[in-house]
Amino acid sequence: MQAEIISIGDELLIGQTINTNSAWIGEQMNSIGVRIHRATAIADSEQEIINSLNETSQRSQLVFITGGLGPTKDDITKHTLCKYFNTSLVINEEALARITQFFEARGLPMLESNRQQAALPVACTVIQNQKGTACGMWFEKNDTVFISMPGVPYEMMGMMEETIIPKILNHFKRPAIVHRTVLTMGVGESFLATTIADWENSLEKEEIKLAYLPSPGMVKLRLSSYIDAPREVVMQKIATKEKELSQLIGEHIYGHEKETIQSVVGRILAEGKETLSTAESCTGGFIGHLITSVSGSSAYYKGGIISYSNELKNKQLDVPQALIDQYGVVSSEVAKAMAQGARNVFNTHWAVASTGIAGPDGGTQDTPVGTVWLAIAGPEEVISVKFNLGKSRDRTITVASNYALNLLRKEILRQVH
Amino acid sequence: MQAEIISIGDELLIGQTINTNSAWIGEQMNSIGVRIHRATAIADSEQEIINSLNETSQRSQLVFITGGLGPTKDDITKHTLCKYFNTSLVINEEALARITQFFEARGLPMLESNRQQAALPVACTVIQNQKGTACGMWFEKNDTVFISMPGVPYEMMGMMEETIIPKILNHFKRPAIVHRTVLTMGVGESFLATTIADWENSLEKEEIKLAYLPSPGMVKLRLSSYIDAPREVVMQKIATKEKELSQLIGEHIYGHEKETIQSVVGRILAEGKETLSTAESCTGGFIGHLITSVSGSSAYYKGGIISYSNELKNKQLDVPQALIDQYGVVSSEVAKAMAQGARNVFNTHWAVASTGIAGPDGGTQDTPVGTVWLAIAGPEEVISVKFNLGKSRDRTITVASNYALNLLRKEILRQVH
Repeated sequence: MQAEIISIGDELLIGQTINTNSAWIGEQMNSIGVRIHRATAIADSEQEIINSLNETSQRSQLVFITGGLGPTKDDITKHTLCKYFNTSLVINEEALARITQFFEARGLPMLESNRQQAALPVACTVIQNQKGTACGMWFEKNDTVFISMPGVPYEMMGMMEETIIPKILNHFKRPAIVHRTVLTMGVGESFLATTIADWENSLEKEEIKLAYLPSPGMVKLRLSSYIDAPREVVMQKIATKEKELSQLIGEHIYGHEKETIQSVVGRILAEGKETLSTAESCTGGFIGHLITSVSGSSAYYKGGIISYSNELKNKQLDVPQALIDQYGVVSSEVAKAMAQGARNVFNTHWAVASTGIAGPDGGTQDTPVGTVWLAIAGPEEVISVKFNLGKSRDRTITVASNYALNLLRKEILRQVH
Repeated sequence: MQAEIISIGDELLIGQTINTNSAWIGEQMNSIGVRIHRATAIADSEQEIINSLNETSQRSQLVFITGGLGPTKDDITKHTLCKYFNTSLVINEEALARITQFFEARGLPMLESNRQQAALPVACTVIQNQKGTACGMWFEKNDTVFISMPGVPYEMMGMMEETIIPKILNHFKRPAIVHRTVLTMGVGESFLATTIADWENSLEKEEIKLAYLPSPGMVKLRLSSYIDAPREVVMQKIATKEKELSQLIGEHIYGHEKETIQSVVGRILAEGKETLSTAESCTGGFIGHLITSVSGSSAYYKGGIISYSNELKNKQLDVPQALIDQYGVVSSEVAKAMAQGARNVFNTHWAVASTGIAGPDGGTQDTPVGTVWLAIAGPEEVISVKFNLGKSRDRTITVASNYALNLLRKEILRQVH
């Protein structure tokens, strides 16, 4: 069975919006054994939409279509689908009631353009939208299912989870696809490839495919099997190979599947009933943001100081001015003092600190742009590590914040366990 | 002239990586008048790559190809291109020298797989990569230019900026495309559409197209013209229409083009030589992160407190415990006291505070999940505003942080100007 995605919207092609919908749909389908073999972004143009529908109908049995269902004039998907499926619009009473209620609940006036969103093609099964006013549409034609959804991510996601995925599970027979992802941090793709070369060669006879997925500071290793065998047999094969992999590069592995370094650290802290605080300079709050992006983080995260100016490091974190004068603000000594300061001020088991030059300006000969000192203060020891993360401000902030949490993870395991 | 993008990588189709490359390339091309009419993501499969090359060669004069150029076994793009263009590999001495130097500078061993990255097709013009080891390739065949680049975003971007964009400017004659984007916050798409309906109707006779681009809490309005007229004439037409638009919805407009609320606030603060601090509860550091994502923010941002636990609000920000007991921690009173506290502690002209329930748990009848109080303390007054932002934790954090900065923008204009 072949599935594919058509994303409609000029904004995707001129780069004003990043296409997160395709990735999300791909991930959902992958988890239920539906393989997306192509994802195409096209303009809000009737001809492009018709061409794409024609092409996909020849290749695929399932086609997801997102975008162009809003109440405004640039939204042409619904009318184009009517033309393609040779059908007309009729008011869907359930949709009209829901849209009316949507506006009443918010105390907003309902406009004619909103009312028109309840006018839907006769030839489709209407998919109600619990989070917005644009309905989804499920069409079937010559053994291909076409599903049109709004482009607003959380509306599309809600519709998929509530209605469309259950309907797909019911409608299609699916083969087993098994993936397993191992998450590494701090080492490069080539280093990993060389270290695991023999192991990688051994995958072929097990019919397992390996992919390297690098992102700043991290490499995900994805093992995939498309073998037509019982799911348990395939999973056992992959588990054996994963165990061998851990023996080779275990120290660089911080998690699996959809884990993040912040969720892993959070789990370890929650399990040990330990607490955390932060003292951030160059990362400007991003470490705190990563930590608090995890639901339930208030159980272990007490808070932090963003000490963007030097006087604040002294005032809020008790970093002695003499230390700053002697070693410079971007130094091992100041990073350690910040971590120790946060640990004291917030009265936590652990504290993470960052000080560095995110750039693009402000570097010196001795301390070039991208220099970051990270420190971890724990019950037994305060440690610090220096990194040079290059000239991109965004990348330095992101990588430094992730490295800081990975350093914390390693220190918790070292100092406590 | 038609251009399109082929992104190669299983990870894009199973949703493990979001395709940011397509958006970035689209944006770059748009700015130089090259219109991307289609962007396709396909698997790391020889057959899919060959099929896509065949299809694009019939439709487009310029094809960007990203991904599959790494040193590992799953990277098959280079060998597939050799097959498609009927050519063979030869060591490129400049690339080999650069790769060798790349590893020497980092004190890392150079592996055979890295050396092999200097083996490049005879039939292409090699594009050197200053940020990594995989070279780019420029092929020409039957009036179509094919450009293959690595999938790692910052390597691809470096190559585009340094070599490929100048080469495209030189190679193609381009028509004028003029876009103008107006950024609004705090009002919905339908409300905007109704408010500007007459104005929107008037665009047609000027041959200007309008697109609504909603994202959480914001709507971008993009005016586009593809008219074949001198650029100045088109820009003047758009400027006239934009002026009319400002008269209709000016209060909701916070910026233009690629501005962000944090860059707008930063510019206003820098111009007025004023300073800012933050006191964040439910936003957990994200307001600080947005502010410090702007280069040069240390000129006006002194720092912040992330007071995730209640005792910290009291201890660090001098929020009276009695106030918390009387009104609850998610209240106008506590938000105002936090903002005033940060303004005093950090000795800044302005302070922003957030307190709320990001969820998904922790709501009550009176204060449901998604309730957020934002406060701004300024030289003349402390104000607070309540929002209900729904049940998604990520969305609440993002929207609350953006709204907080927009509120600050409005207060600065109101209290000072």
